Amino acid sequence: MDGSQIETLLNEVRAGSASVAEALERLRHLPFEDLGFAKVDHHRALRTGMPEVIFAESKTPAQVAAIFAHMAKAGGNVLATRASREVFEAVYATESRAQFDETARAITLKQTEPVAGKGTIGVVCAGTSDLPVAEEAAVTARLMGNTVEVVADVGVAGLHRLLAQRETLQTARVLIVCAGMEGALPTVVGGLVNAPVIAVPTSVGYGASLGGVAALLGMLNTCAPNVSVVNIDNGFGAACIASLINHL
Amino acid sequence: MDGSQIETLLNEVRAGSASVAEALERLRHLPFEDLGFAKVDHHRALRTGMPEVIFAESKTPAQVAAIFAHMAKAGGNVLATRASREVFEAVYATESRAQFDETARAITLKQTEPVAGKGTIGVVCAGTSDLPVAEEAAVTARLMGNTVEVVADVGVAGLHRLLAQRETLQTARVLIVCAGMEGALPTVVGGLVNAPVIAVPTSVGYGASLGGVAALLGMLNTCAPNVSVVNIDNGFGAACIASLINHL
Amino acid sequence: MDGSQIETLLNEVRAGSASVAEALERLRHLPFEDLGFAKVDHHRALRTGMPEVIFAESKTPAQVAAIFAHMAKAGGNVLATRASREVFEAVYATESRAQFDETARAITLKQTEPVAGKGTIGVVCAGTSDLPVAEEAAVTARLMGNTVEVVADVGVAGLHRLLAQRETLQTARVLIVCAGMEGALPTVVGGLVNAPVIAVPTSVGYGASLGGVAALLGMLNTCAPNVSVVNIDNGFGAACIASLINHL
Amino acid sequence: MDGSQIETLLNEVRAGSASVAEALERLRHLPFEDLGFAKVDHHRALRTGMPEVIFAESKTPAQVAAIFAHMAKAGGNVLATRASREVFEAVYATESRAQFDETARAITLKQTEPVAGKGTIGVVCAGTSDLPVAEEAAVTARLMGNTVEVVADVGVAGLHRLLAQRETLQTARVLIVCAGMEGALPTVVGGLVNAPVIAVPTSVGYGASLGGVAALLGMLNTCAPNVSVVNIDNGFGAACIASLINHL
Amino acid sequence: MDGSQIETLLNEVRAGSASVAEALERLRHLPFEDLGFAKVDHHRALRTGMPEVIFAESKTPAQVAAIFAHMAKAGGNVLATRASREVFEAVYATESRAQFDETARAITLKQTEPVAGKGTIGVVCAGTSDLPVAEEAAVTARLMGNTVEVVADVGVAGLHRLLAQRETLQTARVLIVCAGMEGALPTVVGGLVNAPVIAVPTSVGYGASLGGVAALLGMLNTCAPNVSVVNIDNGFGAACIASLINHL
Amino acid sequence: MDGSQIETLLNEVRAGSASVAEALERLRHLPFEDLGFAKVDHHRALRTGMPEVIFAESKTPAQVAAIFAHMAKAGGNVLATRASREVFEAVYATESRAQFDETARAITLKQTEPVAGKGTIGVVCAGTSDLPVAEEAAVTARLMGNTVEVVADVGVAGLHRLLAQRETLQTARVLIVCAGMEGALPTVVGGLVNAPVIAVPTSVGYGASLGGVAALLGMLNTCAPNVSVVNIDNGFGAACIASLINHL
Amino acid sequence: MDGSQIETLLNEVRAGSASVAEALERLRHLPFEDLGFAKVDHHRALRTGMPEVIFAESKTPAQVAAIFAHMAKAGGNVLATRASREVFEAVYATESRAQFDETARAITLKQTEPVAGKGTIGVVCAGTSDLPVAEEAAVTARLMGNTVEVVADVGVAGLHRLLAQRETLQTARVLIVCAGMEGALPTVVGGLVNAPVIAVPTSVGYGASLGGVAALLGMLNTCAPNVSVVNIDNGFGAACIASLINHL
Amino acid sequence: MDGSQIETLLNEVRAGSASVAEALERLRHLPFEDLGFAKVDHHRALRTGMPEVIFAESKTPAQVAAIFAHMAKAGGNVLATRASREVFEAVYATESRAQFDETARAITLKQTEPVAGKGTIGVVCAGTSDLPVAEEAAVTARLMGNTVEVVADVGVAGLHRLLAQRETLQTARVLIVCAGMEGALPTVVGGLVNAPVIAVPTSVGYGASLGGVAALLGMLNTCAPNVSVVNIDNGFGAACIASLINHL
Repeated sequence: MDGSQIETLLNEVRAGSASVAEALERLRHLPFEDLGFAKVDHHRALRTGMPEVIFAESKTPAQVAAIFAHMAKAGGNVLATRASREVFEAVYATESRAQFDETARAITLKQTEPVAGKGTIGVVCAGTSDLPVAEEAAVTARLMGNTVEVVADVGVAGLHRLLAQRETLQTARVLIVCAGMEGALPTVVGGLVNAPVIAVPTSVGYGASLGGVAALLGMLNTCAPNVSVVNIDNGFGAACIASLINHL
Repeated sequence: MDGSQIETLLNEVRAGSASVAEALERLRHLPFEDLGFAKVDHHRALRTGMPEVIFAESKTPAQVAAIFAHMAKAGGNVLATRASREVFEAVYATESRAQFDETARAITLKQTEPVAGKGTIGVVCAGTSDLPVAEEAAVTARLMGNTVEVVADVGVAGLHRLLAQRETLQTARVLIVCAGMEGALPTVVGGLVNAPVIAVPTSVGYGASLGGVAALLGMLNTCAPNVSVVNIDNGFGAACIASLINHL
Repeated sequence: MDGSQIETLLNEVRAGSASVAEALERLRHLPFEDLGFAKVDHHRALRTGMPEVIFAESKTPAQVAAIFAHMAKAGGNVLATRASREVFEAVYATESRAQFDETARAITLKQTEPVAGKGTIGVVCAGTSDLPVAEEAAVTARLMGNTVEVVADVGVAGLHRLLAQRETLQTARVLIVCAGMEGALPTVVGGLVNAPVIAVPTSVGYGASLGGVAALLGMLNTCAPNVSVVNIDNGFGAACIASLINHL
Repeated sequence: MDGSQIETLLNEVRAGSASVAEALERLRHLPFEDLGFAKVDHHRALRTGMPEVIFAESKTPAQVAAIFAHMAKAGGNVLATRASREVFEAVYATESRAQFDETARAITLKQTEPVAGKGTIGVVCAGTSDLPVAEEAAVTARLMGNTVEVVADVGVAGLHRLLAQRETLQTARVLIVCAGMEGALPTVVGGLVNAPVIAVPTSVGYGASLGGVAALLGMLNTCAPNVSVVNIDNGFGAACIASLINHL
Repeated sequence: MDGSQIETLLNEVRAGSASVAEALERLRHLPFEDLGFAKVDHHRALRTGMPEVIFAESKTPAQVAAIFAHMAKAGGNVLATRASREVFEAVYATESRAQFDETARAITLKQTEPVAGKGTIGVVCAGTSDLPVAEEAAVTARLMGNTVEVVADVGVAGLHRLLAQRETLQTARVLIVCAGMEGALPTVVGGLVNAPVIAVPTSVGYGASLGGVAALLGMLNTCAPNVSVVNIDNGFGAACIASLINHL
Repeated sequence: MDGSQIETLLNEVRAGSASVAEALERLRHLPFEDLGFAKVDHHRALRTGMPEVIFAESKTPAQVAAIFAHMAKAGGNVLATRASREVFEAVYATESRAQFDETARAITLKQTEPVAGKGTIGVVCAGTSDLPVAEEAAVTARLMGNTVEVVADVGVAGLHRLLAQRETLQTARVLIVCAGMEGALPTVVGGLVNAPVIAVPTSVGYGASLGGVAALLGMLNTCAPNVSVVNIDNGFGAACIASLINHL
Repeated sequence: MDGSQIETLLNEVRAGSASVAEALERLRHLPFEDLGFAKVDHHRALRTGMPEVIFAESKTPAQVAAIFAHMAKAGGNVLATRASREVFEAVYATESRAQFDETARAITLKQTEPVAGKGTIGVVCAGTSDLPVAEEAAVTARLMGNTVEVVADVGVAGLHRLLAQRETLQTARVLIVCAGMEGALPTVVGGLVNAPVIAVPTSVGYGASLGGVAALLGMLNTCAPNVSVVNIDNGFGAACIASLINHL
Repeated sequence: MDGSQIETLLNEVRAGSASVAEALERLRHLPFEDLGFAKVDHHRALRTGMPEVIFAESKTPAQVAAIFAHMAKAGGNVLATRASREVFEAVYATESRAQFDETARAITLKQTEPVAGKGTIGVVCAGTSDLPVAEEAAVTARLMGNTVEVVADVGVAGLHRLLAQRETLQTARVLIVCAGMEGALPTVVGGLVNAPVIAVPTSVGYGASLGGVAALLGMLNTCAPNVSVVNIDNGFGAACIASLINHL
């Protein structure tokens, strides 16, 4: 029962062909989306340029290709994250406009121009091992209409490299900071800028890094008041939040 | 050595009373704040209306009162978090304009009008036990110049109460969602709105809540793409981030 | 806007004083409880005899007394869990019909006769230290209309005492089994009976019991296929589930 | 020494060929199953339609096939869980009536019609990644004589889809709810229905999901009073409990 | 129904006043202790000199005193562990023969002479902070009839003190080794002797000792093949096992 | 400097060719094994029949074969644990008397008859998945001169099978009990017997079994006073301790 | 048997009143300290100026006072850590030369001048809450003969303050860096200096700081190659290591 | 802008071609390395002989070979850690002077003679399984100009072997002690020597070793006051710290 069905019902009430009691009963049980609820999602997509997304990690190449093709037909932009080259090849066979960013492990298809964000999103990471997560964030943010500036190789044990990038950091409207091991980079960056910082712990490290948990705990205990945190390796989620903020 | 000292040095160079080599050496060792670094903090305060803050929990009433009085003299707004009534009485004895919000456990002194945020910050929590954390966030955000709307008692096991507040939720520019126990509220709220959601796990619960760790893990694993997380019970930090976003 | 308001609206539509478009708009935004949602809770109470409940642990005696009195006025049964004697005295001062079970730490007020459950609920525990949790379950279940049989002091390191109670266990329609330390009792009981077993880990123990986590893990790893688990020390929750099953 | 042996002994006592003292001694040492204990298991199978079960994960295809064939000879129904296609092929080679559900990773052989459950078991899950666990539950429950209704793709971050299934949820006699990541679905479902909910955390997720522990903790801390929990990915166990309840 | 009741039944069978079928039925349901099961416990007490035991930690002084007096009446030895001086005073008021070991936090009453163990039990600990656990073990073992030799203050960071006690260690028939912090002492002792070593982690330490978990993990990972482990601070349990071994 | 060197030194002192001061200095620095320390190990081997042991898991087949051959030359018994068939084949190529127990994953070479233990060692396990650990214990204990009785498939959720083995359990001089999942078997066995029980948690299980940690915690929290615990899957260590006790 | 006893023995050998065989036997069993082992400790104290130390936390004021007085008599320096003012008063009553540092919670008695360290030990901490740990390190290091420079209030979220102290940091011969919360300070300091850094996690923080475990993990995962770590809050231990290095 | 650029600027100021205000502005924004910051790293390399380092574990052979060749051109020494033979072959193909230590998993190229350390670094480990970590430390330390003495196979369960090496241990200027399992070796060594001990937990072990976490916790809780700890398996880091100390 959608909006027009409710309209029909009201018309029947007005015409007297449905009693008030009967209408009351039918209204009581109508599915929620009939109230226009589901359209929120659609509006969100239009307003923020959020693409359709596939988490490829636990799917076969054939499955990803099939979903990708299905989504592409709807005419919007499509993103597959955590994709291997093998997955890309399956996607490419059915959709030759798809593009692959190997570092970011991301397949993208851009069919429409998203609404542009208002400022720049800075994506910062410490070492080359954090790059896949940082690039996943960058690719996602760009597909959502944002200008992205990536600052790599600025670990906290070599402050001069980080400080040399101060200006770039301070002009970003919102920052995504990825770090593994001790996870201190978001705090240090948070102290240098006046913008919201989305911290992404990465699973980079060994031994007591506990698969990224050490970095995660470090970020949650930050003494910088402008840092919030997402799940380990979740570059995609960080980009969604940063894009939302950048479109405000 | 501050900015004027560098100016003096440069004037000496110009006048020839200091050699270039000598000036080079002195510049190499000058403290960083001489470069105007420390002023960033000052600018930040002006621009965002961030007050001076005291974390009262591990301090004696006398210590908090002394720091509070010292900060108050600077003329800006002052906030003490995690304060007991006993702490407030010590503060009040030296600064009678200070006000106490017992639920929020916060002492505030408002001396200047902060720059107003652009929209409303929604502060949402599930049960009455989460209220101290939610109110800490609300008090902090208000002192930073934001309009705050608190929505309480909307746990996910009784959706109708949450859905009845849908309109309030959807008009907020940014949301702070506090929840203990299973920590599911930020995800459900995140699915209802199109704004950034700052999730605050609370230490409310018992047994396997592990002092808020269960709620924290739940929030980090959210399937809503607009949710980021701060430390357990960190209402203050959530308010800082929300205020930053609301002033963009 | 409640059900009668919708009725009024429909009458206006029928009478022509409200247009269909206008009615459509108002319906789209009406709070969910207007659709009778909130009544589900009420129906649930009627059908299962679930009382109004207060978790007293983090509240002052005065707060519990106030809430208790307020709930009592509604005419149904009232239960306060995790209550000390001091709390009871505050409640008793305003509601002299309230009764206190010190072992269960529960205050009850029975004003109506709940629908009777169909069989017996067996509540089993190992040692005397588990009794508070077991009794919380027993008191709760009784207030919901169930016949309860408590079997105490039947630890798995002394099988003969447990086996001596086999008949009692096997006649229960559903069982609640509370155990701390190694948490093995639900598995052993589960193997002796053919009924659903609700396992409640207790925080009884020391050292590597980790506040009940050891017992919890033991129960989750049960090799008996009829055992499910609730939170540590959650006798109340176990009774709710057992009562639901016993009223099927 | 089985039942007939005790009978023989008693006959000897009656006939005087065994003294009372001697009989007393022999009785004292007789194995427990002689008392009819083992028959409980047999009765349980008859009454609940519980099939013979093989946990295939840590066994070779040849081992599973051999056990499966052995069990099949007994004439009852047989179920192998956590089975790969390779395992199925080995089973099929010896028992061509066996059937394979690839999503559920379950091999079934139905030789007898189990006693029918009284109502419907609802099996609910959030995403497609939770389907293997949900389907394991569904296949198991059906083989035990239950009518099962599967509701998939109803994550808590998109409430409208879940609410659209409200009626299906509310007509189930007992529900199994599978969820990974933040594990919030059982709580939300628990708040919508009046039936017992068996929550199954799944190992779906990454980073701070800790292999399903985050979802598990979320479920144990539920604020819905009708939710109990089984081990991570334990769809089979959830189905056993649900079937027991549905046969009450 | 006890042993004499079975005898009566058998006599009835013999006399013909009970049929074989009827006797079979009554035997099938008889409680297990009727088979002499419960007597095992009694025999155990006689053979090993195990006293009656009260874990005093979570009981009131009055409760402990009452149980102690009740047990004392049975004529055997009685032991209360984890007892404060206040508890002792309550016990002493009703049973003036009771004795208190303040370091061991143990109250003992010796009424009968237990069977003597065959060799010496060595009880070893590193620092004075481990003494309460070591003394609990020593007091328990002595009450069970063992000769005990306590070796204190022999931490692994000062090997010469430990090695000076080598002879004492090597003459013990079984050893109990208590250690907190890094928990290395049982491994080092295990390498010096040829006897079974029962390791007791203590909760002594701070920070990363995690309440004794660090010591526990260290002991479980021992590279000495003659070391097994009991729960944190469980001096009583270690003494039971050591006494069992010493009575073999 | 070995024993004969000390003898030579003493002879020099006696003959006057070394002064007392000089001898004192040389003695002060002599290596510890010169004092006969290393011989302890040798005596231990003779007395307890402990074989030479290789932990094969982290070594290549060639390495294991080389070490095995080297040890075999010394004339004693040799044991390699955690060995694959591939490793056995490498060992067999150089030492054709070596034997392989595939379930126990153990390679043995018996060249001498060890001193016989005094009683029987019972090795108990719940399911077939625990058999590799139980058999590792059994093979090790036999090679050390013990009579071993293995009792398998006696899980605590089917007590009648366990109770049927009561007599076997009660005649053992010491028991090794292996269990995964909830790890309750050692406690139940401990309550049935009067002998020391060495509990071995196994890594059998999934989800919340956490690789054997759940079983380990369960065993450490046992309420049976005759149970001590070794590391997860450490069948070898349990056998060493049991053999030591059985040779007392 | 001490050194002079060995001398006596050797004299007997020389004189012929003891045979070589007899001497060999007595030497084999002589306690290790006879070989001068225990003197190592004494030499260490002389060389490094290490004082006698009492860990006061788990001792009564009377106990600390008694031990302190006993140690003072030996003539060396004495240090009691984790001492309250109440403890100090008890110590002061018997030893009026004792001094108390309330922030460091340390009681000291300096009777001899320790050997001076070669350079300066820098003690760095982030916030005022870390000061007790930092001051414990400073007081300890000074009593061991080191020049100490304390740098406080230099958190990583405000780099300019830290960088302003660069010169002080770079002139230290070894650094002790204390930090709670995210524990990033040692890494940042480690990148600025060329000296060994001893990192001390503090238990400062709340929520996900887990009593200092988050800071500890952060420090262990440092990307600076000159940082090693001690236990949470272990300022004393850090000072011992730093002093050792500073005396090299 | 480097040092010479600042010099140019100052010359311009002196010459009057740049105003003081203009120079002030340019200085305020100059990147930090312009102040000679980056040179610290260079100086460090010269002074301590620290080589260029590649962490090879998460890189392809081709990537390592390319970076190695690039670093080799700079003329200094180069080290690649965690390298397989396959990685070495790729490196060797482009740089035939590179050498491979298979146990240490390290590739080295020595082009310059580092400044020699002042004493010996002792590298100690318990079993052969710890050798890769110990050898990584040894190879790294040697490339940094240190004399290294490796002491292997000295586990704490066989003290005589460790004590036999006492002299070697006591002559080292600083020690690196690697241990897995219970991680007790650094504490025991720490008690035998008077030098700083860097403890390296290794991931050697199984079950409750939790991938080296048990050893790590043991080392952090050491009762020896001269032990500090680095991350699990971090032989490289331990060598850097030891070399720093040895060059003081």
